[in-house]
This record gives sequence, structure tokens and C-alpha cells, in this order.
Amino acid sequence: MMYVETVRKRIGPLHEDAMRAARRRLDSLTKPRGSLGVLEDLAVTLAGIVGEPIPKLSHKVVLVMAGDHGVARDGLTGYPQEVTAQMVRNFLRGGAAINVLSRLAGAEVRVVDVGVACDMEEPGLISMKIVRGTENIAKAPAMSETDASRCILAGAIAARDACEAGADVIAVGEMGIGNTTPSTAILATFSGMPVEAITGRGAGLDDEGLARKIEIIRKALDLHRPDPRDAMDVLSKLGGAEIAAMTGAILEGAARRRPVVLDGFICGVAGLVACRLVPASRDYMIASHLSREPGHRLVLELLGKKPLFNLDMRLGEGTGAALALHLLEASTRIMREMATFDEAGVSQGTVHSGTDIP
Amino acid sequence: MMYVETVRKRIGPLHEDAMRAARRRLDSLTKPRGSLGVLEDLAVTLAGIVGEPIPKLSHKVVLVMAGDHGVARDGLTGYPQEVTAQMVRNFLRGGAAINVLSRLAGAEVRVVDVGVACDMEEPGLISMKIVRGTENIAKAPAMSETDASRCILAGAIAARDACEAGADVIAVGEMGIGNTTPSTAILATFSGMPVEAITGRGAGLDDEGLARKIEIIRKALDLHRPDPRDAMDVLSKLGGAEIAAMTGAILEGAARRRPVVLDGFICGVAGLVACRLVPASRDYMIASHLSREPGHRLVLELLGKKPLFNLDMRLGEGTGAALALHLLEASTRIMREMATFDEAGVSQGTVHSGTDIP
Repeated sequence: MMYVETVRKRIGPLHEDAMRAARRRLDSLTKPRGSLGVLEDLAVTLAGIVGEPIPKLSHKVVLVMAGDHGVARDGLTGYPQEVTAQMVRNFLRGGAAINVLSRLAGAEVRVVDVGVACDMEEPGLISMKIVRGTENIAKAPAMSETDASRCILAGAIAARDACEAGADVIAVGEMGIGNTTPSTAILATFSGMPVEAITGRGAGLDDEGLARKIEIIRKALDLHRPDPRDAMDVLSKLGGAEIAAMTGAILEGAARRRPVVLDGFICGVAGLVACRLVPASRDYMIASHLSREPGHRLVLELLGKKPLFNLDMRLGEGTGAALALHLLEASTRIMREMATFDEAGVSQGTVHSGTDIP
Repeated sequence: MMYVETVRKRIGPLHEDAMRAARRRLDSLTKPRGSLGVLEDLAVTLAGIVGEPIPKLSHKVVLVMAGDHGVARDGLTGYPQEVTAQMVRNFLRGGAAINVLSRLAGAEVRVVDVGVACDMEEPGLISMKIVRGTENIAKAPAMSETDASRCILAGAIAARDACEAGADVIAVGEMGIGNTTPSTAILATFSGMPVEAITGRGAGLDDEGLARKIEIIRKALDLHRPDPRDAMDVLSKLGGAEIAAMTGAILEGAARRRPVVLDGFICGVAGLVACRLVPASRDYMIASHLSREPGHRLVLELLGKKPLFNLDMRLGEGTGAALALHLLEASTRIMREMATFDEAGVSQGTVHSGTDIP
């Protein structure tokens, strides 16, 4: 827990003065007040995170954390476990959806191995392997608390390195065949919701597979009885090396006052863990999209976040977060490039009451 | 009505073979089937519109139609009528929200004067002025049916010119102080809905202004009693030179098999008019966002369209459509740049039933 104890002291509140200055600037631009809706709110949030009225978001980094899961070895998932490593290679060659959407966003993709089950020594891969896959949570704790802490630290180091290389904003994603299972188990523990109400089909389970997945999660919860008030207990018993690494990246991003863009369900669960460990980290998270995975709505509710869009996506990898970078970019461009009423010689409205701003 | 009669024969159905080929390609890419949700549906729609499995969308054009409204002269709106011309100048200098978002999308902005009340001879402006503002619809028909036809033709010519200059996709927007009033009147006529249920605050009316707006729309409907089955009657009596021009641009874009991206409420009403004139044009329209203007939901329902996103925007100009261009770009990049399972050496899933694709 040493890293978590340290980072807790480094995460402060949002910068109120910068947020007020951002709102003043928005209200001086040639448009009805508030008429850019969420783009305006986003600009204010970004100002508060970075601590400047018009933050620069030129260097964007997508961190993709990869790890394997014991449950996948037992044939629970629609894809064999080997696909995790195969997809990591696909990321490194630039052929996956996250590569395409990151190129479009002008973002650099960094792929981190924290828990892939096989040896991987591909050029370009950030190797910080802590475990060779987790244990099957239906039979044993996913990993030790020490390993969970190491995975958090690995993610934090990846985020630190990205920031030191110039990253102004961090998008977080994952790859791990089977990882909706541990994510759902973690969510069930934190929320107290019945497993069947929040379990989805992941990458494409049929009805029988879904029933087995629910059974496995119930079994894991009965076996481990993690303490919902102890996030490290929950994280280590129910697992996910890449989930823990995302938690670390989120915390370190927050400590360095970088906007951290969350992807979908699994990443959102990592956000929940970060929130339980350091509640102040919540303000630095931006929810990109609402995933089709049914538990995601509850994750966002618990985080108190409204997603920017809902495109019925359920791919992971960071694809939703990468798409959302466009909206962050749009909101800062609005702040930087739009003319004010004075500059453009445009008459201001007579009806500018606050009532039209929610 | 001559242009409308001609264009009707030029608008055919979507290209089914291209759509099937697009779906096959999507299913071969390294991702669970259907997991990119709406981005995949969009790729299929674009294929059907253009008639190629992987359409090229390199040259993007945003057409902004400008016109004034008699109702605005009577102080109904929160901004003076002069703001229409002032904002047109702002567009031409690149300082408005639509300029910022179009630059971000890599799109060219073309500004068309079809009905601005004052003389405008700015460099860069496409001058096709048909009326010098419409009449106040509470007292007289907005314009003659001949002028409405001319405005449609002007919009069609602007779209034709854009396409002949290389536009692969057209986004449509508008500027016209007061234009939510005629748009709401047109929507009330087509839908039969009570005026008070669909009238909003436009750029920011207070309660008193909103009550007056509802009164004016009711008065206009009582005075003109337009025939809801005759779209030209509705359009000319209730008006909007820029609304008619958007209708023309939508029809011409459809005839040339270009995706036509609709902006918000006012543009959606122009889409409804286009749909009433040539029902087949509907398939070429892509709804970008759901606006905060209350009538927009009904417009999209009547069009049978689901918006791509909802960011609580209500600015107009084409800003929602310009933002949506990113999603069109993303969907074609996915098609073009992602590796297939075979290319990447990734194992295909065992559970690939159709059940996970809605």
C-alpha cells in the first residue's frame, strides 16, 4: 500500500479560479451562453484539472494495460486465452481498433504487459509483468495483495513515464480475455447488487455461457467474501492485473493533474477502485462512453459521472476513450480559437438570464 | 416545383450489395462482431449511400445557409436581427464555433446568403439572395411559393457546386436570428402537435418571450392554415429562406449519393420538408445530435432517425453536424485500416452467434 499512501497526499482538489476564468471566457465568445452544452462543461472541467483557463492538450497518450485471467483458462469466454497476447501483438503492429482510433485522435498508444500469461518480448511493448495471468477466482484469490499493489505501481509508472514524455492527457484502456468476469465480481462487491442483474455477455457469450459466468462470479464471491470497505482486499481477491494497473494509471494521472479519460466497463471498475482508494481522484476522471455491457451504467452511477456519448460500443482496448479525445480537443479549440463578441463586432443578446444555463 | 420534380427521379435507394460487403468486411476485422456498435452501423449506411463498401470521405464540406426572419424584426428574439449578418461576417473570418469545429474536422465551410435582410458583399460569401428576410409570419406568408422554390434551388446549387469541387460528404447548418419560430410552426403543421408542447427558448428567451413566441406561432397557423400534405405550401407560408435552402442541399446531396449530415432542430425541420417532397431522400440523411431545443426529438422521430450523440447543444450553424463528421471519419478508418483476423493471426471467437448483434 505504500504507493497508494503516497499518491493520496499528491491528489488535490480542482482549481476553482481556473474554472471561473474558463466560464468567463466561454461567456464572452460569439454564441448564446451555454449553447455548446457539454462541450462547455468539459472545457471548465479541463481547466479545473489542469489549473489553467485554457489547457493545452497537444500530446495525447492512450495506455492499454494487458493481463490474463484464470477464469478464461476454464473455457468460460468466447475467445481462447491466447487472444490476449495475439491482440497485444496486433496493437504493436497498429492493426487494432484502438490503433485506428488513436491515430485519428493524434494520440500515441502505449501497451503495457502487467499480466499476460505467456512470455512476450515484442519490440515496443512496455514490459512490467507482475503475474503470468491471475488464478481462477472460482478456486483461489486472483493474486496476492502484494502483487495487486505491484500492478497498481506498474500502472502508475506507465502513467508517470507518459507524463514525463509530455502527455497532457491520458486515456486508459485494457486487453484481457475474460476480464468482464472479475470486473463484474468487483462491481457486485462494491455495489451489493445481485450478480445476475449486472452480468453481461462480454465479447459475446450465449445464454448458456452467461449462466455459467454468473455461477462462477457467485462462487468466487462466496469463496472469498471480500470486504467491500477494503478496496485492496476486493482487488486482489477478485483480480485483474490490468484492472489494478489501470487503477494505478488513473491515480498517477490525477496526481499529475492530467485529465484521465476512462473507457468502458472494465476501465470504469478500475476507476471505482481508484475512487475507493483515493476519493479525490474522482474529479480527474472523464467518462467517455456508456458501454453496452450492462454493469457499466451502475459503475458510472457509483462514480457520479455522465458519459459523453453512447454508441453501443463494447470493444474495450480504450476505443471509447480514444473517440472521446476528439471532444476534449473540440472543447479546448473552442476556448482558444473562437472570437469574442467584441473581437467579431457581434451584438450581445438582450435575454441573457441565467435561466437557460442548467 | 420544377427542380423538385427533377431531383425526385435522381434519388434512388441505398446500394444493398455495398452494404452487405461492408458488413462482411466488418465481421472479418479483429474485434468481436458488432462490438463497435453504432460506428459499424454507420459504416454500413455510408457504404449504402455512396455505393462502395469502403467509401472515401476525404473532402468534407459544411454548408451554412443564412437568412433573416420577419418575426425577429418585431423583437421576438433575444438577439437583434443584425446579428445574422454579423455572424455571417464572423463565419467568413473564421471566428465562429462552426469554423473551429470544421477546422478540427478538416472540413471546408461554405457560407450561403439566401435571405439575409441587408446587403452583403463580403469576399468568400456565396451570394444567392432570393429574399431580403421573410415577412413576419404572424401577419403575412413568409414568402411566395415561387421564392421558396428558388431558395430550394439555391441550396441545391450550393450543394452541387460543393460536390463538383470534390465534396464526399456534406454537413448542413444555418444562421438566422429568429429561425426556431418558423421551424416550430412547420413542425406543428406536419406533426399536429400542440404548439406549446414543442416550442423552446431558442437562443435564450425568458418565460415571457417564450409565451409570446407560442402566441405568434399560433397566430401564424390560424392565419395561413397551411395544408400539411403540401410541403411547399407549408414551407412558403411559414418560411425560412435558409430552411428552404437546406432542404435543397439535402435533396441534391441525396441525388449525388453523398451522406448528408443534419445539424439540430432547424436543419432537422429542413430534412422533414425534404422527406415530404422526396421520401427517398431520407436514407441519405444522417442525424448528428439531439439538440436541447424541445421540438428536435419529435423531428427525429418523424424522420425515423436516432441521433449519434446528445451533448445538450443548441447553437446551430452546423456545429453538431461538424462534430459528427469525426464519427463518420472514424467508421471509414475502421473499415480501411483495421487488420483482419487472418492478417493479424488472431484466433476467432467460438461464440459468434448472431444474438449479440441487435
